[in-house]
Amino acid sequence: MLLVDMKSKKINFENMKIIDISWPITKNCTEYKNKKTVQFEFLKNFDQDNVRDSIITLGSHTGTHIDAPAHFLENGKTIDQINLEKFIGKAKVLDLTHVQEKITEQNLDQFYIVKDDIILLKTKNSLLSETQNFEPNFVYLEKSGAEFLAKKEVKTVGIDYLGIERNQPDHETHKILLEKEIVIIEGLRLKDATEKEYFFYCLPIFTVGLEAAPARAILIK
Amino acid sequence: MLLVDMKSKKINFENMKIIDISWPITKNCTEYKNKKTVQFEFLKNFDQDNVRDSIITLGSHTGTHIDAPAHFLENGKTIDQINLEKFIGKAKVLDLTHVQEKITEQNLDQFYIVKDDIILLKTKNSLLSETQNFEPNFVYLEKSGAEFLAKKEVKTVGIDYLGIERNQPDHETHKILLEKEIVIIEGLRLKDATEKEYFFYCLPIFTVGLEAAPARAILIK
Repeated sequence: MLLVDMKSKKINFENMKIIDISWPITKNCTEYKNKKTVQFEFLKNFDQDNVRDSIITLGSHTGTHIDAPAHFLENGKTIDQINLEKFIGKAKVLDLTHVQEKITEQNLDQFYIVKDDIILLKTKNSLLSETQNFEPNFVYLEKSGAEFLAKKEVKTVGIDYLGIERNQPDHETHKILLEKEIVIIEGLRLKDATEKEYFFYCLPIFTVGLEAAPARAILIK
Repeated sequence: MLLVDMKSKKINFENMKIIDISWPITKNCTEYKNKKTVQFEFLKNFDQDNVRDSIITLGSHTGTHIDAPAHFLENGKTIDQINLEKFIGKAKVLDLTHVQEKITEQNLDQFYIVKDDIILLKTKNSLLSETQNFEPNFVYLEKSGAEFLAKKEVKTVGIDYLGIERNQPDHETHKILLEKEIVIIEGLRLKDATEKEYFFYCLPIFTVGLEAAPARAILIK
């Protein structure tokens, strides 16, 4: 029979502060290249049925989401095949808000980055609204930056816009990372995060067989 | 500039073990009363496009999900209005696998339950398959059990089937809990959890304005 004292309960969670770094999903939220995938259908509503029930439709790359290797690799793993450890652990938020166009190796090699790090790239993208038209000129991770992180063998890379690259032939940034099974998290919102280490949890819904899935991501102080 | 040593990185996550207690979402997964809401549409597939992209449709009460007060209360909060602290913290898994039909106050009052506990009810429901027909005779939380937990002021109650009550007039269990803003998590899978305290994280997708949302739930040992 479970008997626990109050003390142990209070050790870890008493002073925790949760920072929600997820993109709100609405009918009007910004989507990649202005795809309009989000729909909420109300099957039952309170006036008629005394209960609410709804159906959600959304692209697998809507809001905060995880790209699995299957997104760009023929035999790559799908979301459900990736160990959840990839999305949980200490994460380093890197302040790259001074970068104007793209994050290169040069921007990254001044940070202390080691194997199995979760790296979250905070850029001026975090100031873009969550409902305006898609901004094609978002700050992205350039090929050299992706190669640098792949060489370091980080476990996960997150960025604060709905894509991690733009206008690179053949999607090099995605492929460099995904070929090493480095998971990509897109659509983070990092304006409330500062440059430091946090506990990070990013949990995708458990859809089986897909190349990506919406997720909720938080930092804990 | 972020400079961290390896030691601090290793304190908390080195020996963690994640237990995934979420319901896999597939076209054939069991749904409440055999509603068939789940659809995956493949917009782009590898053979034609060298990239995969998909659209997900699912009921807000599919698989592991959170019921917010708006599910049954006219002016109740929607999922996005609930503090994420409700879904994070130490959780007590109660072994109720001996219960045949319904969980009553008598079944619960032998446990050490206090204010702000997250209570996860492990029943023989956890042995039901995740893809078979909906089992209408699942073990549920009876009104007296809900009243007991409401009086204790727990913060969240989770159960291992797609509903927390059956055949009670006027959905009493839901209403007793939701009126106190005690959040309900349905569709957990607890066969790999034993009766003890775990760290618990349950993160719903950040859909705005809905009465419920799919979530991923884990225990950490």
